[in-house]
Amino acid sequence: MKPSHWLPCLDWGRGYDRGSAAQDGLAALIVTLMLIPQSLAYAMLAGLPPVTGLYASILPLLAYALFGSSRTLAVGPVAVVSLMTAATLAPLFPAGSPAYVGAAMLLALLSGVLLAAMAMLRLGFIANFLSHPVVSGFISASGILIAVGQLKHLLGVSASGENLPQLLPKLIQALPGTHGPTLLIGVLSLAWLWWARTHLKQTLQHLGLSAQLANNLAKAGPVLAIIVAIATVDLLQLEQAGVRVVGLVPQGLPGLTLPTLDLDLAIQLLPAALLISLVGFVESVSVGQTLAAKRRQRIQPDNELLGLGAANISAALSGGFPVTGGFARSVVNYDAGARTPMAGVFTALGIGLSVMLLTPLLHDLPQAVLAATIIVAVLSLVDLKSLRHTWRYSRQDGAAQIATLLGVLLIGVEAGILLGVGLSLLLFLWRTSQPHIAVVGQVPGSEHFRNVERFAVIETPNVLSLRVDESLYFPNARYLEDRIGELIASRPQVRHLVLMCSGVNLIDASALDSLNAIVERLHAAGVQLHLSEVKGPVMDRLRRSDFLQCFGGQVFISQFEALKQLAPVPAASSQPLPTQGNPHEKRS
Amino acid sequence: MKPSHWLPCLDWGRGYDRGSAAQDGLAALIVTLMLIPQSLAYAMLAGLPPVTGLYASILPLLAYALFGSSRTLAVGPVAVVSLMTAATLAPLFPAGSPAYVGAAMLLALLSGVLLAAMAMLRLGFIANFLSHPVVSGFISASGILIAVGQLKHLLGVSASGENLPQLLPKLIQALPGTHGPTLLIGVLSLAWLWWARTHLKQTLQHLGLSAQLANNLAKAGPVLAIIVAIATVDLLQLEQAGVRVVGLVPQGLPGLTLPTLDLDLAIQLLPAALLISLVGFVESVSVGQTLAAKRRQRIQPDNELLGLGAANISAALSGGFPVTGGFARSVVNYDAGARTPMAGVFTALGIGLSVMLLTPLLHDLPQAVLAATIIVAVLSLVDLKSLRHTWRYSRQDGAAQIATLLGVLLIGVEAGILLGVGLSLLLFLWRTSQPHIAVVGQVPGSEHFRNVERFAVIETPNVLSLRVDESLYFPNARYLEDRIGELIASRPQVRHLVLMCSGVNLIDASALDSLNAIVERLHAAGVQLHLSEVKGPVMDRLRRSDFLQCFGGQVFISQFEALKQLAPVPAASSQPLPTQGNPHEKRS
Repeated sequence: MKPSHWLPCLDWGRGYDRGSAAQDGLAALIVTLMLIPQSLAYAMLAGLPPVTGLYASILPLLAYALFGSSRTLAVGPVAVVSLMTAATLAPLFPAGSPAYVGAAMLLALLSGVLLAAMAMLRLGFIANFLSHPVVSGFISASGILIAVGQLKHLLGVSASGENLPQLLPKLIQALPGTHGPTLLIGVLSLAWLWWARTHLKQTLQHLGLSAQLANNLAKAGPVLAIIVAIATVDLLQLEQAGVRVVGLVPQGLPGLTLPTLDLDLAIQLLPAALLISLVGFVESVSVGQTLAAKRRQRIQPDNELLGLGAANISAALSGGFPVTGGFARSVVNYDAGARTPMAGVFTALGIGLSVMLLTPLLHDLPQAVLAATIIVAVLSLVDLKSLRHTWRYSRQDGAAQIATLLGVLLIGVEAGILLGVGLSLLLFLWRTSQPHIAVVGQVPGSEHFRNVERFAVIETPNVLSLRVDESLYFPNARYLEDRIGELIASRPQVRHLVLMCSGVNLIDASALDSLNAIVERLHAAGVQLHLSEVKGPVMDRLRRSDFLQCFGGQVFISQFEALKQLAPVPAASSQPLPTQGNPHEKRS
Repeated sequence: MKPSHWLPCLDWGRGYDRGSAAQDGLAALIVTLMLIPQSLAYAMLAGLPPVTGLYASILPLLAYALFGSSRTLAVGPVAVVSLMTAATLAPLFPAGSPAYVGAAMLLALLSGVLLAAMAMLRLGFIANFLSHPVVSGFISASGILIAVGQLKHLLGVSASGENLPQLLPKLIQALPGTHGPTLLIGVLSLAWLWWARTHLKQTLQHLGLSAQLANNLAKAGPVLAIIVAIATVDLLQLEQAGVRVVGLVPQGLPGLTLPTLDLDLAIQLLPAALLISLVGFVESVSVGQTLAAKRRQRIQPDNELLGLGAANISAALSGGFPVTGGFARSVVNYDAGARTPMAGVFTALGIGLSVMLLTPLLHDLPQAVLAATIIVAVLSLVDLKSLRHTWRYSRQDGAAQIATLLGVLLIGVEAGILLGVGLSLLLFLWRTSQPHIAVVGQVPGSEHFRNVERFAVIETPNVLSLRVDESLYFPNARYLEDRIGELIASRPQVRHLVLMCSGVNLIDASALDSLNAIVERLHAAGVQLHLSEVKGPVMDRLRRSDFLQCFGGQVFISQFEALKQLAPVPAASSQPLPTQGNPHEKRS
């Protein structure tokens, strides 16, 4: 294995030149301006001191640049993972306490070690447990939950909870205590940020700026809000008037420390760390794949696991909390022209400089502005339209998505995602446990066989052709026995049953037992089982059992071949029906 | 819905006559003789007073006769479920204490309610989670664990533990304290029971008895052991010599009581109750199906759930513990000629009479004899040969079986079965997450398409025919994108990609997203996607999305039709190869 297999930076680093550096530098500048408010805000969302958000945006970016395979992914604190961090730690420690901060570091360490282990063991496929509808429902619900949770900062009141039934009554109770100046700052920030996101670019273009410059400047909208807000609080002495501000932010780079390795706590945090890892990985890979595809590049899931693992471990070592690849900032990075992960290195330098120089200026930053930043960011995650699409396409997928959505909103983030994953597995199992089994006949004038209920096809009285539309394996092993029993019982003239295996991609040990039982029962009823169109890998496996020697029938290369040998003269065609589109398809 | 849907006894009860009653009565007598020692023994195995085993063999049999659909299944305490009961309760309460007995009743109640709820909600398919290899590994390991656990009774020492690493050292430590007379009784019982099981029938036949009578008498072997043992202990005053006996067994029928409804305890017991229900259901259904098939009868899984649910609820109400359909006793019931569940009613009467009349006689029954009964019964459950078969057929199934076996032996029953189920799901997901994708070509002289690597087939340079051997759904949605990307990248001359969907039994919402992404990328590369051989149910679903309008390609009825239209003149055939068996199959 080449060293560049685990260190993709050796590939892109070799040809790195001044042109790329200029592009990466510009992208880094814009991402830095975007990351400063976001990092502070997501740390607040995670229940941590704001400066930890900046810490989590330095070393992790370097680590990802070293090991990650996406050229443009920007890692750091993101909304959903910060929410999951808060949901995990809030029941255990008072928010912001040293124990809480330590546990957040431990959570990042566990998450990083899990991701790295999954990379080494090539277990990335576990992330497939999270189907698109579950992830979509989860992210939408998290967005709503986060936005509602931040309202308290806009109102200047206290109200916390891990789901809507806890949050909403508290917010309503706290409503009379709304702090006017805070609300004003919050609403103005919200309006500005929303306008900046949707209209600033065009306005700047109308003012005569180039599209590229307008686009880049528009990303600095939140920074402007911060500067104006700090100046206002400072000038009008609003802190004394009761506007809550970020307060003292320690200056200087974080020291390298190992989180306290409390084994009991680690075991307690492990399930949450696994969920955070998987959700973070899925989110990051989706972003990475989308961006890579645009430039016809590829990302390697194993490298992504390792990159994110390294990012989280280094977050843990530098006073941070769990991080992953973020959608918004990666798109900004991409749009700003980032060519290589070196943009991440430059961004890390930018954040590092900010921590050393700018933190004293952040003291007067109102929490309401950060809350507005979060709300604007997460509301773009909410996509309830996809729910309608999913539901229309598939009731099962729709149910999984709704369950995840409602689970997160009404119970909490972890319960919601587990509900979604559990339900999608259960529905999948239910679906495959009762597979579609079609009686098929020959499409006239062809060698093709289709469902007798959908197509006008030719059937043979003494040969029953069955197509099982599912792999034969443990969830449906018993069902097949039952259905074949019924079908044979209702057709006394049948002497041969040909199982057309074009849809059978696997026959596992449970199904092999069932097949043996079926053969035995069919023999007792005077019927012989045959197989047709058995795929290579399935055939290879059957040859390793004694089924082929014992079942007494033949394995035909195609259903056509089977019928040619078992019933040389086809008996009767069903009536031709009026057709539309496909000439042989029956109308329903 | 007919009343007989939920009360199958209305069906068989209508035509019940004296002939059936005589048959059922004889079977009941034999099963009663067999059940008395087994019930006492399995109660001891479950850590309960022996009499609870008899209690659990009265009402549950009546309840099952009312609701169950198998004609010959005999329910009551069974080895594996008793072991699971002990594993659940032993960490919570001292064995045999009133709290322990109460918790066992509660466990039966929970298990019964769960089973009945599963019947009502038609959730029986959940039992499919337990694949054959997992069940087989679980039962073999439980058999070994039970047998080793009973050795202490044979040796007359104390040693307990929930897995072999706990049990074996304690047994070895306790070895010097072996109680001679107990060991002698134990070994003699073991030898007699073993011989009775394997040779008594033939011996009785050699003595001139009819095969049927010899068979029935042989089942009473354990009862003879009990009688001789009680007489010996009584005559030689062995209890005073230190032989542990069953002791005082309360006389009379159990009173009807509701177990104490401790909600906290109920929640704590719920996961175990679910596992016990599922394992009991699977064991019972396998037995029921096997016996029903022999007489061309059918069992209904929903009725079985309800029957077992009612049996467990009534066990809970009458001082019993979790029960299910047992393999050995059902076979005996069947062999002895039982015709209907009325045999179960007669058996319940027999056990009821025994509780009222015989219990004083059981005082001097040595525990070593019961232990011998258990050991002989469970060793027949151990089937390590099937492990070799499974492993040879499928590494994944074999791994699941080994994991379950080792998990039960080395960690414990619950951990073992969860490990097996988890691993089989994980391996299944892993397997389907990287589906077999074959490039296919036309088998010369037919309309059939097969893998180019296995068959000498005709390929077309500008049309790539791909057969995906898996449903397209969340575990493999991303993999398909990757593989198609690779295949297209290596074939620059391809203009059309036809996805042959004969193996695609489902396209879920995640895979639909992936297909849209694939179409987009193919378009960018100048390739058009088409589908062929899409099955009816899959097509119905696709019509509910906008995929068919947007993807720009066609859906062909067969791969042959697709090639006929997209590449009217086939370009070149691959070299004909020497073949064997199937004329087109390549030799490997």
